[in-house]
Formats: sequence, structure tokens, C-alpha cells
Amino acid sequence: MRIVKAADWGMTRQVDYGTPEQIETVKRIVRDVRQKGDAAVQEYTLMHDKVGISSEQLRITESDVEAAYKRVEESFLTAIRQAADNIRRFHEKQKRTSWMEFQPDGTLLGQIVRPLKRVGVYVPGGKAAYPSSVLMNVIPAQVAGVPEIVMVTPPATGGTDGIDPYILVAAAEAGVKEMYRVGGAQAIAALAYGTETIAPVDKICGPGNIYVALAKREVFGVVDIDSIAGPSEIVVLADENARPSYVAADLLSQAEHDEMASAVLITNSPSLADAVSAEVDRQLAVLPRRDIAAASIEQYGAILIVDDLREGVKMVNEIAPEHLEILTEDPMEWVGSIENAGAIFLGAYSSEPVGDYFAGPNHIIPTNGTARFSSPVDVDMFMKKSSLIRYSKEALLANGKTIMELARHEGLEAHARAIEVRLRD
Amino acid sequence: MRIVKAADWGMTRQVDYGTPEQIETVKRIVRDVRQKGDAAVQEYTLMHDKVGISSEQLRITESDVEAAYKRVEESFLTAIRQAADNIRRFHEKQKRTSWMEFQPDGTLLGQIVRPLKRVGVYVPGGKAAYPSSVLMNVIPAQVAGVPEIVMVTPPATGGTDGIDPYILVAAAEAGVKEMYRVGGAQAIAALAYGTETIAPVDKICGPGNIYVALAKREVFGVVDIDSIAGPSEIVVLADENARPSYVAADLLSQAEHDEMASAVLITNSPSLADAVSAEVDRQLAVLPRRDIAAASIEQYGAILIVDDLREGVKMVNEIAPEHLEILTEDPMEWVGSIENAGAIFLGAYSSEPVGDYFAGPNHIIPTNGTARFSSPVDVDMFMKKSSLIRYSKEALLANGKTIMELARHEGLEAHARAIEVRLRD
Repeated sequence: MRIVKAADWGMTRQVDYGTPEQIETVKRIVRDVRQKGDAAVQEYTLMHDKVGISSEQLRITESDVEAAYKRVEESFLTAIRQAADNIRRFHEKQKRTSWMEFQPDGTLLGQIVRPLKRVGVYVPGGKAAYPSSVLMNVIPAQVAGVPEIVMVTPPATGGTDGIDPYILVAAAEAGVKEMYRVGGAQAIAALAYGTETIAPVDKICGPGNIYVALAKREVFGVVDIDSIAGPSEIVVLADENARPSYVAADLLSQAEHDEMASAVLITNSPSLADAVSAEVDRQLAVLPRRDIAAASIEQYGAILIVDDLREGVKMVNEIAPEHLEILTEDPMEWVGSIENAGAIFLGAYSSEPVGDYFAGPNHIIPTNGTARFSSPVDVDMFMKKSSLIRYSKEALLANGKTIMELARHEGLEAHARAIEVRLRD
Repeated sequence: MRIVKAADWGMTRQVDYGTPEQIETVKRIVRDVRQKGDAAVQEYTLMHDKVGISSEQLRITESDVEAAYKRVEESFLTAIRQAADNIRRFHEKQKRTSWMEFQPDGTLLGQIVRPLKRVGVYVPGGKAAYPSSVLMNVIPAQVAGVPEIVMVTPPATGGTDGIDPYILVAAAEAGVKEMYRVGGAQAIAALAYGTETIAPVDKICGPGNIYVALAKREVFGVVDIDSIAGPSEIVVLADENARPSYVAADLLSQAEHDEMASAVLITNSPSLADAVSAEVDRQLAVLPRRDIAAASIEQYGAILIVDDLREGVKMVNEIAPEHLEILTEDPMEWVGSIENAGAIFLGAYSSEPVGDYFAGPNHIIPTNGTARFSSPVDVDMFMKKSSLIRYSKEALLANGKTIMELARHEGLEAHARAIEVRLRD
């Protein structure tokens, strides 16, 4: 793994916004589903997933879910339940409540905080079908109190029965009661506009391929969407106290995701840099996904040498990584100066997979520098607020003239008169 | 004003996404500013605002602000300060803090909640320059603790000195210390990418014309943006207890904003419907902005008769209005069944302008049905969260195997090995 002086390093990431042809295809699918409903969903499912499916078969039944439970190992069920408990516990801490403030003049002001009514969660098919991502998308919505959570996932090439049982079990464990066999842009369009079989939702979340991402972009505004994830990233900030084998393993756990994934070590210790570089080579050689990990390390991986950790922190803040591990003598010392990082892992035992699967915080985290202004998925993303205003007669008498002055200053006379008509009485 | 049976009414709103030519123009401006910085900003300011301006003149100086203070009336200053105090007080109630949870096995989990570092607020020029909107955009960011809040506003046709003094005073009162004379798509591009004079921001908010809206859409992802506002809307839900003159005045205060604005009364009282219809005509005739208000009422206004208020509430939830006034015998009775409304005004003295200018809640509220899934501007929109995970040796020993099982199930062996390398030691 290459070692470079921090000052000489510059990483440029590209976000895939799709080709003009892909964008055109997605616009057509969305338009057709909006106009023709189930019929268009069936047509595109046949075309893209090579699965002929009736309207009735779109819905995944309770007996499908029961059958899935019989196909998964007991140990998997235990593991997913423990993970779900931890995730639920962490997200329950985030839940906000409505609040009101009563003023002596009779005024009441407040914010009503409520869950969205209906949310759609997209789960990709094939190898990208991760039960952990099902938990991470569904549980925050469930904790928020969303009464209707709908999962959609493409019918596998195995036909209508070929959906990964682990996905169905994870969804059921997370509390999903409504699931459909539909994927791609047609699934997103169905969730946004509704069809005869699938009622429309208020928000769509979950990862997907470029067609799914473009479809989410296309329907944004009709419904809310989550942010569109870029390739995964890790930055490890370490000093000479870090164990090279741990650092290398953590870098590789990120690199194995995707050739576009990025794994970067920032250190003030040249000897750690050398040792990690050698360890990465050693561990990489015996990794099942070594081709992917090697390409990621080659293109987007680096070991950066800084003069001191303060300079390292500055680089972290510039990169604004999705995941940051701090493996220094006293990791807590640096937390206060980390301005931009989606999730911060402290110390030798907080390897990133701890957070990916189990600890409780969400693993859907801003990528590509967007931790500068956005946050990991949480309960807030499935709630909405309404302002509440009750003005009393006394309050209006006391403040009416001031309100009228401000309205008239802005040339909005009807605003002023709406106050005046009340003051006159 | 026309009266229709609720069942016979259907309103379709259009959102302006710009023409292909406008989109192309905006893309070019953004690209040029990104590449050429101040020079491109100056070029487009000359082209679109007809103002020649040097790099040095872009920044609005302290003495410009002092001069503005001398030009505004004392009563305006008093009014804007009272409004700012109320807005600040309401938004301070929303502020969240970081939290942590310590578990007996040494695990630490938490969320760090922090303000964004630098935010840009766009303020339109000309007649759309509303001091109240400056307060509503800036104060939540300031309460969030954003250290750098930057305002941009186009140089008025009067030249570099022609910026509305009320805007400068409102910005200064809200706490803005950095302001620039630049508007249009070039201002948005400068905020997103930075120029020699203007440092880049993390989020851009504030209303603007179609070019500003398209530019915000274009730079979204590089920076965060607020939602793009559609035309303003009010729904009044009223029974026979409501005063027709109040209802009519409130409907007109919305209608005067814009020909695209929408003002709708929903009532179970045919006699109220008749009385409001007559009142609207009477009040409209003597309104300064009667042409605008009349066009709005004609196109997007309606009085809907429902059989009972329960049916009215159902319609409200379908419309998901920006503003909802409840003018019934006991308004509080209905709050619990209102699922979708950006701001809810209760009772005879809570006329919408009370909230537009003064009470404290934000007047930037989701339009066009998006209250189904989004919220009025608040402090949360200027904060971001990072997850914090510190796993102990004990916790990793206890849970490591479960984590490895979940990782291996997903085919991510390097994830499992990052745990394994630690368990082995």
C-alpha cells in the first residue's frame, strides 16, 4: 500500500449521476408506472428481472415469510435479534416529543413532532441484499412510530419464490408487515405514485443500483428520499500505539466493499506506516474478495504521513469521512476537534464492523464529504414537525400594531388588514 | 369567490422546474464561477444586474451597515428587534445536545450534535427583499451555533450602494457579520465552490427566482440546500362560529402574495360560505394588490362545503397545506387529527400574519403538499450529528463471534477478520 506525504496527496471522488440514456430510461419507467400502474410494473419486471409476475403475486404473503423462517439457521436468527435489539435501543434514545410553551398572556406556541405515515424501504436483490441494511433502514422508522413500513425487493432470477429468506426474516424481525416483489426504477415509481396493488408512500429509503438511485432523484418532491450513498470510506487516524494488524484489517474491511471504496490511514508514525503497508499486503493476499479490495486500495487507498496528529485531524476534517477510527494513545482527546465525520470509532476494540452490524448506531452514514452537512440515518429522518400557534386576544392587542408595521413595510397590506379587522372589533 | 362541494373539487398545482434554456444557462454560470471565481461573478453581475463591480466592492462593509442603520425608522428597528427576540426564543427551545450512554461492560455509544460550520443565506433583491425572511433564515442558524453565517443579495439597479437598508439592518440584528453584493445563480455558485473573495459554505438557504432555485438544485450534493419553496398556501377550517370578515381577510392575506398562491376555506356551514364569499369580494375591491389577489382567488381559491368537520379534516390531510387556520368552536379538539400541515393556527386571534412576522415559529414552511414529509425551518436544519462508538475489550469478547457470523453471512470476510484478528490476541 502506497505511503505518501500528506501534503502531496489529493483524492478526487466521482459521484455517478448516470448516463443520459440511463436517465431517459428511468424517466420513461417512472412515467409509465405512474400512468399504467401494476401493468407497467409487471411489464418492466418481465423486461429487467426476467420474471413474469401477476398482480396478486406482487405481495409477499405471511406464508412466504413463515417459509423463510424455516430456511434460516437458528444462530442467524439469534444474531439478527441481538443486533436488532441494540439498534432499537440506540435509536430509542433519539426520539423527540412534541413541546408547547404557554405564556402568561394566553399565547401558546409549540412544535408537534409526529412520525411520517407511510415509508417505503428498498432492498436490492442478489449479492447486495444485506439483512443488516434492512435493520438499519427499518428500525429507525419503526422507532419513530411510522405506522406503515413497506419493503420492496426485486424477485430473484429464481422466480417469484427466489427472494433471499434472510432478507424476509430480517424485515419481519424489524417489524415490516407489508412486502412486495418488485425492484428497480419500477419499484420506486410504484412507491411514489402508487398502483392498484401498492399504496403510495411519503418517503423512500434504502440503497440500490444506478437505476434505483436515478428513480429516487426523479420522484423527489412527490415523496421524500434519503440521501443517495456514494462508495464507502474509512479514515484511520493512528499514532505509534496502534497495532498494524488491526489497522490493516480495518482498512481492508472497507476496501472489500467495492472497487470505488476508499481506505486511508493518516499517521504521524513512519514506522506504523511501513508496518501497516506490509500488513495490508499480507492480509490482502489471503482475502476471498482480494480483487475488489486490491483495486480499491490501489485507486483510493493511501497511507498519509503527517508531522503531528493535529495536522492529521485537519486532514480528517477536510475529507469528512463516512467512518473515522481513532487509534491513538488517548482517542477521546481528539473527539472535540473532529468537525466532520459520520461515525467515530474510538480505540483498539472499536473496529468498524462493530458498528456495521451490531453496536446500535446506524451504519447508513453520509459519504463523499457530505458529513460536513449531513448525518447518519436516525429517527428524526422519519418524523416531521408542525408549528402550533395560538394567539390570545390580549397578545394580539398588545402586538397587533407592530405586526401591521412589519407587514406594511413589506408592502403586504392584506396581511396588515387581517390584523386590523380584529383590532377594530 | 366560488363555492363548491368538496367532492367536486380538485386542485392541481404545478412546480416550476425551469425551461431547458434556463437550466442550460444556470449550468454555464455555475461552471464558469467554479472555474474563474470572482471574474465570472463580476461578468454575470454586469450581464444580469447591469452593475459593474470590483472584487473589493463585493463585500458589504461595516460602514455600509452603519449607514443603513441611519436610514431606517426607529419604529422599524424596534419592531424587528421584538420579532427577532420572539423568533430566537422559540428556536432556542429546539436546540439539541450531544448525548452518550455508558454501558457496564465499558461500551460508550452516543451522538455528537454540532452546528454546521458555515452557512450562506440568499436574500432576493427588489420587491421580494423581505426583512422578515432574513430573520427567519438567519436566526435558526445562529441559535444552532453556526459560527459563520454569510448573506448574499444582488446589488440593486441603483448600483453598489442601492441595497435595501432594511435588509442590511435585519441581517445585522440577526447576527450576520459577513455580507456580499451578489445575486442570481452566480451567488449560489460562489457560495458552493468559493471564489477569491467568498469562501465556500456547507449549506445554502433562502428564497430566490427560478435561476436561484435551479442553481441550488445544481450545486446540491456539493453543499446542502434548503427545500425549494412553491407558491404559498392557506387552508382555513371553520364552522359557523367563525367571523366571515376574519376568514376573508386571512384568505386574502395569502392570496396577495402571488397569483399562484392558494387560499381555501373548508366549512360545514353553507351560511358561513356565503358570507365569506361576499366578504372576500368586498375586501378584495379595496386592496392595493387586488390584481394579484384576484388572480390567485380565481385560479387557486375555493370555498369547499363539507358534510361535517371530520370530512374537512380529511381534506386538510390530503392537501397538507403550508398554513392551516382552525376557526371552530373548540379548535384544540381538532389538532390531534391533523396529520399534515406545516403550521397550525388556532382560534380567532391567531391570524396567519401573526406567525409570518412575529410570534416566533418559523415562516418558512413546506409548500405544495410536502408537509406530508417535511417540516418548517428549524434549528435541526443547521446541525449535524456524528455517531460515537467506543467498544471495550470485554464487549468485543462477548459479541465478537456474533458480529463475525453476521459479516460472513453477507460474504464480507474482511469484516469478520477485522474482529477475528482482535479476538485472537
